[in-house]
Amino acid sequence: MLLPDQRDRIEIVLVSPRNPLNIGAAARAMANFGFPRLTVVAPYAPHWREAKSAVGAPGLLATARETASIRQAVAHCTFVAGTGTLTHRMPEQPVALLPELGSIILRELERSRGRTGGESRIALVFGAEKHGLTRDDLAYCQTLVEIPTDPQQPSMNLGQAVAVCLYELTRSAASPDHPKPASPPAVSSAQLDRLADLVEQTMIAARYSPAAMQPANRHDLLLLLRRLALSPGDLRRVLGIFRRILWRLGDHHIR
Amino acid sequence: MLLPDQRDRIEIVLVSPRNPLNIGAAARAMANFGFPRLTVVAPYAPHWREAKSAVGAPGLLATARETASIRQAVAHCTFVAGTGTLTHRMPEQPVALLPELGSIILRELERSRGRTGGESRIALVFGAEKHGLTRDDLAYCQTLVEIPTDPQQPSMNLGQAVAVCLYELTRSAASPDHPKPASPPAVSSAQLDRLADLVEQTMIAARYSPAAMQPANRHDLLLLLRRLALSPGDLRRVLGIFRRILWRLGDHHIR
Repeated sequence: MLLPDQRDRIEIVLVSPRNPLNIGAAARAMANFGFPRLTVVAPYAPHWREAKSAVGAPGLLATARETASIRQAVAHCTFVAGTGTLTHRMPEQPVALLPELGSIILRELERSRGRTGGESRIALVFGAEKHGLTRDDLAYCQTLVEIPTDPQQPSMNLGQAVAVCLYELTRSAASPDHPKPASPPAVSSAQLDRLADLVEQTMIAARYSPAAMQPANRHDLLLLLRRLALSPGDLRRVLGIFRRILWRLGDHHIR
Repeated sequence: MLLPDQRDRIEIVLVSPRNPLNIGAAARAMANFGFPRLTVVAPYAPHWREAKSAVGAPGLLATARETASIRQAVAHCTFVAGTGTLTHRMPEQPVALLPELGSIILRELERSRGRTGGESRIALVFGAEKHGLTRDDLAYCQTLVEIPTDPQQPSMNLGQAVAVCLYELTRSAASPDHPKPASPPAVSSAQLDRLADLVEQTMIAARYSPAAMQPANRHDLLLLLRRLALSPGDLRRVLGIFRRILWRLGDHHIR
């Protein structure tokens, strides 16, 4: 069982939820399992209002955060896990099975405890009802957590997917003999984005590839940076290097 | 992971479900986790028709069994587990936590394999939306499985409760090193009811207590018989004894 202050560091992120009943069901599952923090990304406004004002809506809907993009939603998080089923895609990041989620979250909570600069958070991200998380959404995730469903009917209802994942966290994070490897403190998604921006500018300045390739390059870059598990010290060093390169490139262009 | 033929022996029983959306959600969770057998007890007819005819309703709704009472629903089952949260009641039967359900079900599947007289089944029973399983419903259950929810918001949505329980079965029944204690084969709920009827008649014939006490006595009797874990041989013996007693009592009354 996660402690209340550990649950308070886990954000549930719903990307573009459409159906107010599903939003309500997700919020109810959060209340059932004691997870208070909800963020919704680009919800459809009328349905979002309807979900918040529904009779019996859990209080956490009223205090939910709303962001325009997944990038903003997870910017302050040091670890981001996307959820889904694997039937129709080949993921580009490491895949964990849902029963492993508890130990992953405990490891990351521990890892980000040593981080300086305020409280750090972990995000568990759920995609829109129709198609789940897109490839672009997943570029902000360190891991894709697979919910093991039947290949004949793989697609879960959003509220049920949230319930199953939070039950798993409530269930398995209980293990008291959890090993605590000495891992370096984590960096936030926003810090990785800043580095990605800088590297991207550098690539453009360096005329690395045609402009048409830019979105694909950015996508690969986001994935790459999340695979690296950079420490804050690593990050500072890499940022410093790229700032220097970019300055140099600009310098050369001007001259 | 339970094998398909093991899942085929597990019946999901919904007692008096009201909301067609909840019925649909429960059926969808069953399809997601590969459990094909649904029984609904005394559903509200218009909503039951609506759930079955909904767009995208899983095929298992069309083949669902419908019974008038929980007694009929579980009559052929050798083990019946009720589900719920414990906040507002003091249960009268053994309580297991949901994470234990997988090993309990595997043990009971093994135990009932040696049983003669056709295939035996296990039931997982869910109460109505408003109040969950009643005390009378629970009298047909060997065990109450508790879903570990937050005391501040204990009551789960029906579809989400089904999803969480079936996920747990999919998850934990996987353990290959499950111990197989040599336990006696099981008897069905209907066989226990036959014995309860006989014992009740005997109590009445013996003027055991005032007529006003009869419902309470029957309730206690149902619970007692389910605690005993009678083998088929035990059952035959006890039935034989009570038939004899009843015949004797009638005999005395006539003379």
